Amino acid sequence: MDKERKLVGIQGEIGSFSEEAALDLLGQDTEIKNFRSFEAVFESFRDKELDYCVIPMENSLLGSIHRNYDLLLKHKAIIQGEIYLKVIHNLIVMPGTRFEDVKTVISHPVALEQCEMFFEKYPDIKIETSYDTSGSVKELVDSNRKDLAAIAGKRACDAFGGEVLMESIQDYEENYTRFVLLGDSFFYTSAADKTSVVFSFQNKPGALFKSLSVFALRDIDLTRIESRPIAERPWEYLFYVDFLGNLNDIKVKNALNHLQEITDFFEVIGCYKRDHTIKKIGM
Amino acid sequence: MDKERKLVGIQGEIGSFSEEAALDLLGQDTEIKNFRSFEAVFESFRDKELDYCVIPMENSLLGSIHRNYDLLLKHKAIIQGEIYLKVIHNLIVMPGTRFEDVKTVISHPVALEQCEMFFEKYPDIKIETSYDTSGSVKELVDSNRKDLAAIAGKRACDAFGGEVLMESIQDYEENYTRFVLLGDSFFYTSAADKTSVVFSFQNKPGALFKSLSVFALRDIDLTRIESRPIAERPWEYLFYVDFLGNLNDIKVKNALNHLQEITDFFEVIGCYKRDHTIKKIGM
Repeated sequence: MDKERKLVGIQGEIGSFSEEAALDLLGQDTEIKNFRSFEAVFESFRDKELDYCVIPMENSLLGSIHRNYDLLLKHKAIIQGEIYLKVIHNLIVMPGTRFEDVKTVISHPVALEQCEMFFEKYPDIKIETSYDTSGSVKELVDSNRKDLAAIAGKRACDAFGGEVLMESIQDYEENYTRFVLLGDSFFYTSAADKTSVVFSFQNKPGALFKSLSVFALRDIDLTRIESRPIAERPWEYLFYVDFLGNLNDIKVKNALNHLQEITDFFEVIGCYKRDHTIKKIGM
Repeated sequence: MDKERKLVGIQGEIGSFSEEAALDLLGQDTEIKNFRSFEAVFESFRDKELDYCVIPMENSLLGSIHRNYDLLLKHKAIIQGEIYLKVIHNLIVMPGTRFEDVKTVISHPVALEQCEMFFEKYPDIKIETSYDTSGSVKELVDSNRKDLAAIAGKRACDAFGGEVLMESIQDYEENYTRFVLLGDSFFYTSAADKTSVVFSFQNKPGALFKSLSVFALRDIDLTRIESRPIAERPWEYLFYVDFLGNLNDIKVKNALNHLQEITDFFEVIGCYKRDHTIKKIGM
């Protein structure tokens, strides 16, 4: 990545997990522009108002954020980096609020879904949705309500001056989100050890198997496969595949040449350094 | 399927696409119970209050309804049939309403997403969400408002006494949803020509390729692959695979025995007659 100070777009408020991912990926002095929706981030990126965007692509509990795969391809964004963040959700209130006073909890639908057991334990608590976890803390603090709580990370709490009433209320302790750094061109060194591609083939028995064989035959490890429908061709799919290797590796070059023999659409969407936080060895 | 009159649970109101799918699958005199959420349908099914449920699993534009894959497995439901419905969304109003009077449109979020280009064309129209397409027509008729329109199928319009103002306003003409008939046990004849399985394996390079090879080596055609995360094991996945074949076919038996050598979790979740409406030949 370029070392100058760049503008990066994220979905979410100050203190959000996306902000944390962006600062970790690009440096703590990075300039951030906040958007309310993923569509808005990508539109601004398309209009060249941003140098980068940092977007969540997958969560270890809930799976892929499918819409973002579509947006990435639509706006020809290139993956230049990745980071896995451990997501810890806290119950956040106005300082001094007691748990008995909390009647309503507000957060992003995904965070609410990740705290399902909490809500099963307290069925009288009402649920409201917000566009962002961090935004829900902002709403809480702006409203100054004692009967309201937000669910968000510690950063969001600190950013807006809330108080953590209960720590780590999510259903599963192990909860990670993978964020990618997106730019408008390829930017990688020999240290890059992960590559992402997208491809499709017409309805042909065995085509998926043959596509994966180009990697397996060369001992290239896949780390992810994701299928998305093609709107104009019902029941045909785009396959997004991540694998370990650099675009300049001879076996990667051979695999991708081989893949093009089988597919009728094929694009490389990034080559970048793998985040080794996650001890995942392939599939 | 059993020929007696049975109770089937669906998500959605009278006149919904789920109702149409249920009546097509089980006969026009089938007794239907309506629920507001998929969770509620599955809970009633789990409590043995229903003989069947009919659930949408995938849409040709938007992809899988991932939550329903999780619910199907959680509640040990078995697929006994499938049907593909062509989805046509119409703009529905109170009889006599003119288009110029419509200020707000209400529907299910998925239907609204499938009519994105309509809303881009008329940016002044406000959007509201409902729990169901058919339920949005009910809300419209109950409210008797002339400034409101719903988006739903023709059946829903007729069921509640609305009027179709604009036909087929979805972005893509070709828009199909696959519904499955779920029961609590296997029920298939030699006419069944499609089987669904779910499996997982620990992080092992090449395991996905080997899993798919058990089908490819025997010329068994896959029609769908879907991955879902395993909550307790971050970055490991359940794979849902549909393929053409009957559980009693010798090559299917061999393939599934072979698959069990590779996987550490494996279950057959249904064997049923393929809906030939869709000319899909495999992947």
